[in-house]
Parts: sequence; C-alpha cells; structure tokens
Amino acid sequence: MDNQRTEISTLGEFGLIDFLTKNIELQNAGTIVGAGDDAAVLDHFGKQIVVTTDLLVEGVHFDLAYMPLKHIGYKSVVVNLSDVYAMNAQPDQFLMSMAVSNRFSVEAVNEIYEGIYLACKKYVVDLVGGDTTSSLSGLILSGTAIGEVTPDKFVLRSTARKGDLLCVTGDLGAAYLGLQLLEREKKIYIENPDLKPELENKTYILERFLKPEARRDMIDFFEQHSIQPTSMMDISDGLSSEVLHICKQSGVGCIIYEEKIPIHPQSFDTALEFGIDPVTCALHGGEDYELLFTLSPEDYDKIAFSEQISVIGYMTDIAEGTHLLTKSGNRHPLTAQGWNAFR
Amino acid sequence: MDNQRTEISTLGEFGLIDFLTKNIELQNAGTIVGAGDDAAVLDHFGKQIVVTTDLLVEGVHFDLAYMPLKHIGYKSVVVNLSDVYAMNAQPDQFLMSMAVSNRFSVEAVNEIYEGIYLACKKYVVDLVGGDTTSSLSGLILSGTAIGEVTPDKFVLRSTARKGDLLCVTGDLGAAYLGLQLLEREKKIYIENPDLKPELENKTYILERFLKPEARRDMIDFFEQHSIQPTSMMDISDGLSSEVLHICKQSGVGCIIYEEKIPIHPQSFDTALEFGIDPVTCALHGGEDYELLFTLSPEDYDKIAFSEQISVIGYMTDIAEGTHLLTKSGNRHPLTAQGWNAFR
Repeated sequence: MDNQRTEISTLGEFGLIDFLTKNIELQNAGTIVGAGDDAAVLDHFGKQIVVTTDLLVEGVHFDLAYMPLKHIGYKSVVVNLSDVYAMNAQPDQFLMSMAVSNRFSVEAVNEIYEGIYLACKKYVVDLVGGDTTSSLSGLILSGTAIGEVTPDKFVLRSTARKGDLLCVTGDLGAAYLGLQLLEREKKIYIENPDLKPELENKTYILERFLKPEARRDMIDFFEQHSIQPTSMMDISDGLSSEVLHICKQSGVGCIIYEEKIPIHPQSFDTALEFGIDPVTCALHGGEDYELLFTLSPEDYDKIAFSEQISVIGYMTDIAEGTHLLTKSGNRHPLTAQGWNAFR
Repeated sequence: MDNQRTEISTLGEFGLIDFLTKNIELQNAGTIVGAGDDAAVLDHFGKQIVVTTDLLVEGVHFDLAYMPLKHIGYKSVVVNLSDVYAMNAQPDQFLMSMAVSNRFSVEAVNEIYEGIYLACKKYVVDLVGGDTTSSLSGLILSGTAIGEVTPDKFVLRSTARKGDLLCVTGDLGAAYLGLQLLEREKKIYIENPDLKPELENKTYILERFLKPEARRDMIDFFEQHSIQPTSMMDISDGLSSEVLHICKQSGVGCIIYEEKIPIHPQSFDTALEFGIDPVTCALHGGEDYELLFTLSPEDYDKIAFSEQISVIGYMTDIAEGTHLLTKSGNRHPLTAQGWNAFR
C-alpha cells in the first residue's frame, strides 16, 4: 500500500464502486451485462439469466432494537428480488450467507430463516444454498438472487432516451418515515421504558419499513400489457439519487414535477408531525423498493389507467440538467442526498 | 422467540445448516440440486448452471496481522471457484459483496480488489457485480460464483458407491501448517518486534495458506480423459470431515490408508518442528482446496499415471463404518475435528 490514505467517505458508496470497477475487462462472451446495474445479465447457451447480491449489516442497515429477526430475514430476500425485478426479470433461486456472533442462539437464527422461507414462498423462489459462519460481533446477511429474463428483454439503467416519460410505482417516502417513527419510539423507550409506544394509525408506514415488498406485480403487468420500459431500476436509496443514476448512465437530463410524486396520506401526515417536508422524504428517503422506469411516450396509453403507476416527469436533453419543478413553479437542481452507508 | 436458548456451538456449523434447511420444499422445476452440496445446480431452459456463495469474516477466517489485503481478495475468489470445480463445472462469473469499516481506506479496499481481479484473470472469470457497504467493525467478503456444467455431468457428494476408489488431488495439511507458522511468528513479533521472522524454506506451506489455488487443472484433466467421478467435493475443512460428508450423504462407509495420504515434504518437516503428527494436519487441517472424489474401479487406469491424484482408500458398505488404517495396521474411526467457525 502506498502511504496515501483516502477516506472512503470522500468517495461515497457509488464513488467507491466506480473507482473499483472502472478497469474491469470482461473475458467471457457469456457476460452480457457486468457491474453497474441492478443485476448482471449472463448468457448461458443462448438463454439469459440475471444475478444480483446484496449485503445487510447489523448497525448499518438494521437495528435489532426494533427490527424483529423474522423481518430481517424477509427483508434480506426482498431487497435482492427487487433488483431482479428491476431488470424486468423473474427470480427463481436464492442463496443466503449469514455471519452470526455467539450472542445469537439457534432459535434466533431459526427466526431469521423463518422470514427467509416466508419471502421465498411468497415470491416462489427456491433457497438453494449459502454459507453460515460466525462473526466476532453482529449479524451480517448476504443474499444472492438468480432469475431469468426473456432473451434481450432485460431493462438497463443506461438506456433512457430524451422525451421518455419518467414513471414510478406505488408511493414514496413511507419506509423512511416508518424508520423515523421507530427511532423516535426507541429513544422514548430508552428514556422511559414504561411509556407505551405511540404507533396507532401508523401501520402502513411501519410495514413499509419493516416488511417491504418487491414489485413482482409490476413485472407481470408489463408482460401482460406488452410494456417494455426503456430503462429501469429499483428505488432503494431515494428517488432523487436513483433518477440521477439513470440520467448519468443514460446521458440524459430530466424534469420531475413535485406535485406528481406519489405520497401516501399516512406518510404525508407523519412527515408534518415530524416537521419535515413530505416531498423531501419521498425524494431522499430510500428503502421503498418501488420501481423507477422510463417509458416511450407512445406507450402512455398502456399505463394510463394503472393506479400503481405515476408519471412524475420526463427525460430531457442532457444539457438541460436534472431538475425538480416545484408546485410554485421554481426549478431546483436534483441532488443525491440519498441514504449512504458510508456517511 | 420461545424462551429456549440453544447455543449454536452445540450444533456446529453443519448441524446448524442441517437444522435450518431440513424443511426446504423446492418450488421451481428449474432447481435441480438445492442446499447441501458444494454448489446448487439450476436448470435454465434445459441447460445447467451452478452457483455457490462463501463468506470470509475478519477475525474468523483471516487475520490482517499476517494476511495481506491482496491475498484476502484473491482467496475470496478462489474459495468460491473451488466449490464450482467441486461440482465438475467451470466458473464463468463472480460477484463480490464487501462490508468494510472506516478504518479501511480507499487504497486498502483497492488492494483487496487487486487480488480479486488477479484471481478473476487467472481463472478466466468475470467480476459482474456485488455490493459495497460499511460495517461497524471488521472486513467481511461475500463472494458468489456462477458456472456452467455439461448437462447432467455435475458431480454430487451423495453418489459415492461401495467399492469406489477414494481419491484426493495434490497434497494435504500444508495450508494448516502455513497458518501455524504465521501464528507463531505473530506471537514472536508481538513479544519482540525486532526479531526477524523465520520463514526461510517455508515458501510452499506459506503460499498454500496465503494464496490457495483452486483445481481447475483437474476438472480439465477429467474432461480430457473422460473421467466422471462418482462423487466429489473440495477440501476446505480437512480431509476427515469431508470424507465423512461424502460417506453420510452417500450412505456408504470407507477405509483410508494412512500411508497413502499425500503430504508435502515441507509440511512433514514443519509438522515435526511443531511437534504435531503430519497425518493429523492432513486429516484435520483444512483450507487446502484440493478435490476429494470417488471413482469407479474400472476408471483406475485413467488416473494411474497422474502425479496429481492419490488413491487413498475405498468406499465400503455403510455397516463397516468409516476408518483410518494406520501404518501399524490399527483401525481408527474417522472423526470430524475439522475447522469449525462456531467452535
């Protein structure tokens, strides 16, 4: 090692990945899409499979104080499946590697696996392997999902075009607000263990954080309606950060209409309770696992009547930049304040 | 969680995996082989791929005091490829997920990746993705390898037959002795940092531990000579432990001849220096990443002249048990004292 020391935080997660992968030279003809998207696409004997992996680290991605073990197991599957769906593919198999310290009992590990099996069953995915080992401290879950895609129907982040509609599924910001609520209640509990947690009328946002779901239904919808998005990714780090990924990788700009961003009433109310802007939660909250995609304007009719899809803007020439158009008519540049494990 | 608390150490790594996976019900016709072997085998459109994942945890699997970062990266690839070869398959792609604490700089992470790229280049495997995140402490590497196998030519652990020859590639015990040497030198260094480490004439065993290689050459050899092992796995936890896996999963017994176990002269000498039995190192040492396989006796001619393959025994009826026949003619039951992350 040279004497130079660059802190990882100066690059951030995406900067670090860019730095580490910039010189990759692919050697196998079977590798169709390598690093840099939600999942890799591999050609096996003329057929295409996708594969993706995701790491959940205790203290970084979850807090056992309010995250039940079963939910952690469930979530560890869902976050990987979400990446497979984001390629317009269907997951088939899952592998789980786990490092646990000796403060976890067999019963505790079994609870995690109950969540894993529940998610596998729901999404019709087979758990086919993994690795189980000890850790010096904390719990680490490393999932790998494998799926299949109709040849050349996979959807990348880098293929959005000027004029395309920018669309998002479901609603945004709820998971972040669920997390804020749990953090608040944890603090209250530590200060006064006798106070009952105030979680009434918060079921939706809590579920969105504690038991996220991947949008398998949307991939089925695309197939049923012969929709081929021009680009797609899942929203794990917040809308703004993800839109900037698509713009950068596709070489386009965009306009997002603030008033079109879908926000659930419970998210809206909770944001106001916390004194934060609901739109900020939707833009930067993360962990919603909704799909962000672009669509040719000619395909608008195919999605117009879907209650699950919101058109929130459109793609522009790269020279026009990436902006949010507020309700009051102001243009704000989009920034990537999304969740960053290295902050 | 019930009130019951069972320590993981009472089950051990394999007991825990058995416990967690005993009720798996596979849902997809595409899953040919699930958990319980070196890798899973998946059918994709009538073609077969294998996939495997392995976790390396700082403080459990490696010690940064004597393991250079580049070697850790290299090893994290090799241990996964070894599992692919153990299925009689060829690896094509690799994914690396990594959790690093902020005590690692960008330069340090880059060193790890240099090792990863070196291994990928050597084994003609493409790095196609992964995940990079922070950890509260320590370094965790989770690798996933994907390979392909000629349809129905994959080799399981569970298909050895009575009368088959028991074979092993290369030599055994060297990696364990390399580790012992490094542990000794670390202790000496802590006590007296001015003493020069005594690592002369130890290159072989140090390399075996620090820079293990996977036996790609043997899989090529099998293909060239039309050899189809009846069962196979790689030796990561020690010969004895792995032979017991094959016997248990195949429902057979075995006899191993002590004098046939291949041990490198440097391993032999170093074991004596440390006052331990060289055969014990070979039986229980682990981390050699050699291949253990069984072969129909009719195929003996095909391997007879390979210097890389030793026939160390044969498979028996399950009723005869699993034994080591010593040079002095005694029969000792085989025991699984192999490396166990949960000890």
